[in-house]
Amino acid sequence: MIRISIDVMGGDYGPEATIAGAARVTEYLPNIYFLFYGLEETVKPVLKKYPCLASISCFCPTESYTRMDEKPSQALRNGRGKSSMWHAIEAVKNGEADVCISAGNTGALMAMSYFCLKMMAEAERPGIAGIWPTLRSESIVLDIGATIGASANQLVDFAVMGAGMFRALYHTEKPSVGLLNVGVEEVKGLYAIKKAGMILREVQLEGLEYKGFVEGNDIGKGTVDVVVTEGFSGNIALKTAEGTARQIGEILNSAMRSSFFSSLGYFLSRGAFRTLKHKMDPDRVNGGVLLGLNGIVIKSHGSANADGFASAIRIGYTMVHNGLLKKITADLRRFHQNKQTLFYKEDKATENEKII
Amino acid sequence: MIRISIDVMGGDYGPEATIAGAARVTEYLPNIYFLFYGLEETVKPVLKKYPCLASISCFCPTESYTRMDEKPSQALRNGRGKSSMWHAIEAVKNGEADVCISAGNTGALMAMSYFCLKMMAEAERPGIAGIWPTLRSESIVLDIGATIGASANQLVDFAVMGAGMFRALYHTEKPSVGLLNVGVEEVKGLYAIKKAGMILREVQLEGLEYKGFVEGNDIGKGTVDVVVTEGFSGNIALKTAEGTARQIGEILNSAMRSSFFSSLGYFLSRGAFRTLKHKMDPDRVNGGVLLGLNGIVIKSHGSANADGFASAIRIGYTMVHNGLLKKITADLRRFHQNKQTLFYKEDKATENEKII
Repeated sequence: MIRISIDVMGGDYGPEATIAGAARVTEYLPNIYFLFYGLEETVKPVLKKYPCLASISCFCPTESYTRMDEKPSQALRNGRGKSSMWHAIEAVKNGEADVCISAGNTGALMAMSYFCLKMMAEAERPGIAGIWPTLRSESIVLDIGATIGASANQLVDFAVMGAGMFRALYHTEKPSVGLLNVGVEEVKGLYAIKKAGMILREVQLEGLEYKGFVEGNDIGKGTVDVVVTEGFSGNIALKTAEGTARQIGEILNSAMRSSFFSSLGYFLSRGAFRTLKHKMDPDRVNGGVLLGLNGIVIKSHGSANADGFASAIRIGYTMVHNGLLKKITADLRRFHQNKQTLFYKEDKATENEKII
Repeated sequence: MIRISIDVMGGDYGPEATIAGAARVTEYLPNIYFLFYGLEETVKPVLKKYPCLASISCFCPTESYTRMDEKPSQALRNGRGKSSMWHAIEAVKNGEADVCISAGNTGALMAMSYFCLKMMAEAERPGIAGIWPTLRSESIVLDIGATIGASANQLVDFAVMGAGMFRALYHTEKPSVGLLNVGVEEVKGLYAIKKAGMILREVQLEGLEYKGFVEGNDIGKGTVDVVVTEGFSGNIALKTAEGTARQIGEILNSAMRSSFFSSLGYFLSRGAFRTLKHKMDPDRVNGGVLLGLNGIVIKSHGSANADGFASAIRIGYTMVHNGLLKKITADLRRFHQNKQTLFYKEDKATENEKII
């Protein structure tokens, strides 16, 4: 049985998307159980619409919910022990749920998860891993914005965690890993990235294959399965890609309506556009996964509809099913042991000074 | 008369693209004069094909040329005083040319330009400014990879220089400027970016309008005329956008060939695809402009054809015509004076420590 706790109130559409999404996955995911957290008066009427959920879920009413515009510190102060988001996360901490999913306020979700679940002993810093549609299939990119800057050790932790997530989702034995940089030559880039590359090359790991540096255009190509970067560049890359896709969509859309022939052409080739939309659809691979904590928390896009939210649930389900957390913990532990036997000095002071 | 020195040997196609590009612009740019630098045996035969250039150019044979695979330090050692790239840059230094254009090795071009022309007294660090096609029209993004990391002062210098370039190219009196960040709220992001935002807000400048922080997806939207960032994120953003555009192009291309109807649809709507191609064409706005040096140097895409190279020449011509260098120098000087009267402490040690 896989138990999923859901902050029903989160996201632009609240229960209409989150509960509908949960109902949708019951069609194809067996042995699933939901813990729904939210305001009674809002959630109950929506729950009634989905009788299929009655026997495989329980509803836990909460006092409040975390609003989309609350600052992380404010959300933590107001919501601790009270809000639907807090309770959904706490269910993972208390072992009542295996994974928590929310489409709510990202900053608040990160702050509450960090505060409630705490860091894994094996990792230094949390990261958000996103699934990126590529020409080959899909890649995992992390960190896409949990924190800013990262030392070499933290980048290596991201590599190990990202590879673990890729294995759990796609059953690849040795996912390929690249470090995002401004050139593929070993001499280029930030000190932390170069050192992380050196560590990954020398401490050979069973669970991943380090391929060296990759550049921004390699992400969309799918050159590697896992792209590792610190949260600032990761976030810039993600949003720039989204912006470019939207820009192309809008130009094409207005160009297609500009004449009778192009409109007719659009009509005839709409299957091709559906393929494009499907392949680039953020809802299809919806879900930023918070890694590095003592529990798995997934952030769905705030604008996700029922299908999008269902996709976040599917990702969480698959990862729990494949024992992601245990695998990551074991990988990190093994990696740190290997590293120590290679006598790497972990002088954190020097590390931090040289972040750039 | 606007005098343009060209490293004829640079780029994937050498003289076949660079000289052909020069010939092309003579059709619409008056009062232009070219100084061509390159190997005699390679350049002479190509020059003969373009009699229109005979009276408005001179050819200066050089001993060698800078290869695409040379490292910057190597290129500087081998090429100093000898290569076509060096001589083209030196022509600007000696006042024989107003702007230098090369499609050659980027690292070498930057190193030679920096070494030969030296930094402006008013700027701390060079930046490469790129022209980015947007939904609104075009924006300038800098730095897209000259250096890594930037202090608050350096980011502000980029803002002033980028706005100067925008005014010189697009005749907008007060271009809007945004700082690239991971959120638009004032509390988010790196220390250097937050401080740069504070300086830009307080030291109000005649030549630009500071609009606050922008995110990756704002670049393609054209939210602001000038997007300011340090070279690492700028380069990641640029390459990620290029990668995404190529990814969408490839998916659409193969989807359009997948059935008879979609192929027919493509045929009917090919005008719309031409519009898209034109709007997103990197050749149309080809040219990374090195700013902050005592002279203007433009890097054309290595893969630019004659049209692409012509577009880099046109950008250089327009900027010289509108007195870019003098304007930027005056702007920077005025800005630093304003800043001093506002008693900003320029404690560089603190700055550098807090880059992240």
